[in-house]
Amino acid sequence: MKAEIIAVGTELLLGQVVNTNAAEIARMLAPLGIGVYHQTVVGDNAGRLSQALDGARNRVDLVVVCGGLGPTEDDLTRETLSELLGRPLREDSRWTAVLRKRFSGYSSLPVPQNNLRQAMVPEGADLLPNSCGTAPGIWLASDSATFVLVPGPPREMRAMMEEQVLPRLARELDQAGTRRVLVSRILRVVGLGESRVAEMLAPLLAAQTNPTVAPLAQAAEMSLRITAEGKDHSEAENLIETTARKIRAILGDAIYGEDEVTLEAAVGALLAQRHCTLAVAESCTGGLLGMRLSSAPGSSAYFTGGVIAYSYALKSALLGVDPQLLERHGAVSEEVARAMASGALRACKSDYAVAITGIAGPGGATADKPLGLTYIAMETPEGSECRRFTFSGDRETNRYRASQAALEMLRTALLPTAAWR
Amino acid sequence: MKAEIIAVGTELLLGQVVNTNAAEIARMLAPLGIGVYHQTVVGDNAGRLSQALDGARNRVDLVVVCGGLGPTEDDLTRETLSELLGRPLREDSRWTAVLRKRFSGYSSLPVPQNNLRQAMVPEGADLLPNSCGTAPGIWLASDSATFVLVPGPPREMRAMMEEQVLPRLARELDQAGTRRVLVSRILRVVGLGESRVAEMLAPLLAAQTNPTVAPLAQAAEMSLRITAEGKDHSEAENLIETTARKIRAILGDAIYGEDEVTLEAAVGALLAQRHCTLAVAESCTGGLLGMRLSSAPGSSAYFTGGVIAYSYALKSALLGVDPQLLERHGAVSEEVARAMASGALRACKSDYAVAITGIAGPGGATADKPLGLTYIAMETPEGSECRRFTFSGDRETNRYRASQAALEMLRTALLPTAAWR
Repeated sequence: MKAEIIAVGTELLLGQVVNTNAAEIARMLAPLGIGVYHQTVVGDNAGRLSQALDGARNRVDLVVVCGGLGPTEDDLTRETLSELLGRPLREDSRWTAVLRKRFSGYSSLPVPQNNLRQAMVPEGADLLPNSCGTAPGIWLASDSATFVLVPGPPREMRAMMEEQVLPRLARELDQAGTRRVLVSRILRVVGLGESRVAEMLAPLLAAQTNPTVAPLAQAAEMSLRITAEGKDHSEAENLIETTARKIRAILGDAIYGEDEVTLEAAVGALLAQRHCTLAVAESCTGGLLGMRLSSAPGSSAYFTGGVIAYSYALKSALLGVDPQLLERHGAVSEEVARAMASGALRACKSDYAVAITGIAGPGGATADKPLGLTYIAMETPEGSECRRFTFSGDRETNRYRASQAALEMLRTALLPTAAWR
Repeated sequence: MKAEIIAVGTELLLGQVVNTNAAEIARMLAPLGIGVYHQTVVGDNAGRLSQALDGARNRVDLVVVCGGLGPTEDDLTRETLSELLGRPLREDSRWTAVLRKRFSGYSSLPVPQNNLRQAMVPEGADLLPNSCGTAPGIWLASDSATFVLVPGPPREMRAMMEEQVLPRLARELDQAGTRRVLVSRILRVVGLGESRVAEMLAPLLAAQTNPTVAPLAQAAEMSLRITAEGKDHSEAENLIETTARKIRAILGDAIYGEDEVTLEAAVGALLAQRHCTLAVAESCTGGLLGMRLSSAPGSSAYFTGGVIAYSYALKSALLGVDPQLLERHGAVSEEVARAMASGALRACKSDYAVAITGIAGPGGATADKPLGLTYIAMETPEGSECRRFTFSGDRETNRYRASQAALEMLRTALLPTAAWR
């Protein structure tokens, strides 16, 4: 089955809002084996929307239209489709009742006329209930293509796709006996660059057909998306597993997790496994590392907190860094990084501690300390370590890379395969 | 001038990459008065790309094509356009020389044949140099439309648009005497919801023609984009200023800044003006507030750092919170929030301190303490304050809202109009 996604909204055309819906819908359709062949954006303009709908039905089997179902006058999707297909709008009295009930909850006034428009459905179409808002969706099978209309707000779109549209599409594909199953798995890689990974996997990447393996570079890490097609879920999963095993044999511990796992969650899981706690001492990252470590629910089991030692004074006052050390070597030095880590371990009574001090930029560089220079020190029950980095991005990138490098140092130390174990 | 943006790439169609380029290009064209009427995405497929190019040239004057200029075999934009317009590819020997020079920098091997393809240009077209990569762009004026081809990587696209495409478009519009100038300004609003702002500005919004005022809800704040059209920049700026003044008169201090200013930068500027320093004590936000406060270059002038007191023990050890207080009221209480703030002030010797303690979720709620319950306490030279919030989002949203509320409390206290001044 071929699909096209049409997003409707002048704010998208002007670039005030990025069209994330199209990407999300495409990712939702893929597991059903439905390929997206075009994505289009049109403004809130009946003529151009009609042209887009007409073009799409001649190209594909399924047209997903997102947006333009709201109550205001510039919401034209329902009316435009009705006119294009010559299917007059009829009231769906069940939805009118739903609207009356919802509105009665917070007002004694009747439902605004504009909202009542939302209960109108083209002849022969089905209304798709909206569990998060007042704009229902529409499912309309015509001779040329099936049109599925969903609301534009991402939360409402997502709920309607998951609750209504995807199950119905799956059912229809099953009935027609044309369902293929596509399954994807993401392997998350850290500590190896994209080109190095491509090199290591070259023979495997060259031979790929089913599954396919797609490398994707991300912020300070990369991922490999393995996608397999099978007659059912388990066949596809088996194909993926075989390839994943081959990749694991080549990349080893550089793979820190799968699918939606983050590096901070992977580190947290290793700490929790070992019943160990971690403290941080952050200078240039200003709290970013702590924020990441505490982003997972339940992180209080292993993350104690720590010190944001942004000023010289706090490095001494809260972490006990010797002021002479700061004066002699400067805040961005191996000596101070090590003293910050051991200070955090002491102050927080944790098993592990990690400290970051660096010049994130754009200012702060000196003759002997370049922009991006960063020291990361770590205290562990097995010993301590300090590494020196020179990051070359902007302030935000350098801070993120520093937090990433700290997490990767921790992970390496916590792995069962760590050198000192 | 009407424009269409075509983004090329199978990764976009599959939703593996979100099409941010289209939004960014649209925002770049707007100031020149060039309206984007369609956005399209096609995969790396010559047939469908050719159809998209053909459709676009019949609809608009300017077609900006983004992506598909790389060295690999699935990069087809150059060849497809050449074929569609019947303009055979010719080598641009100057770019071949550039490539040879660049490659000689890191290899003694000749330039790969694939990269040499990038110096090929359709007859009558101009090559646009790429200052960040090997793929040059192309400018091709045909009878039907002007085609501008730019690379897909955002950094390269951005550089080429700014250095090559926008100046040339401006020149051509000037020469044709058809240049209109569109200028936008964003007013950033915090502490007032979107519907409340819409209500307060209703008469002004109803009467708008030039400038237009577009409200846009964002994460825990909102913005108003004022866009004016004039014969030149200063006429448009004057129109904007008149409207901005009216909005300021209505919304007052709820406007915290303009254009790219962030709330943390606005707070930082107020602290710097008063030569005051700020410390943080963060529990549920885990470092997020410190990360935001230190995100602006130069923030060490007013941000000292603070304590990530994620565990009970650290609240006592580093902030001096009485353990009995923790036991009696729990970590998420007004008493503990106030003790954390005064502890941070003491430990960090700062002029201001702000403390956050809350239940970000998904776990942690109790019978008397609901999910999202958050206390934010502030110590200032003029006195202290504590506020209670109940946020209703997911963990990430609640943490962000807490940091936003803390910044807004600080800003209100620092404003020259603050109640106690």
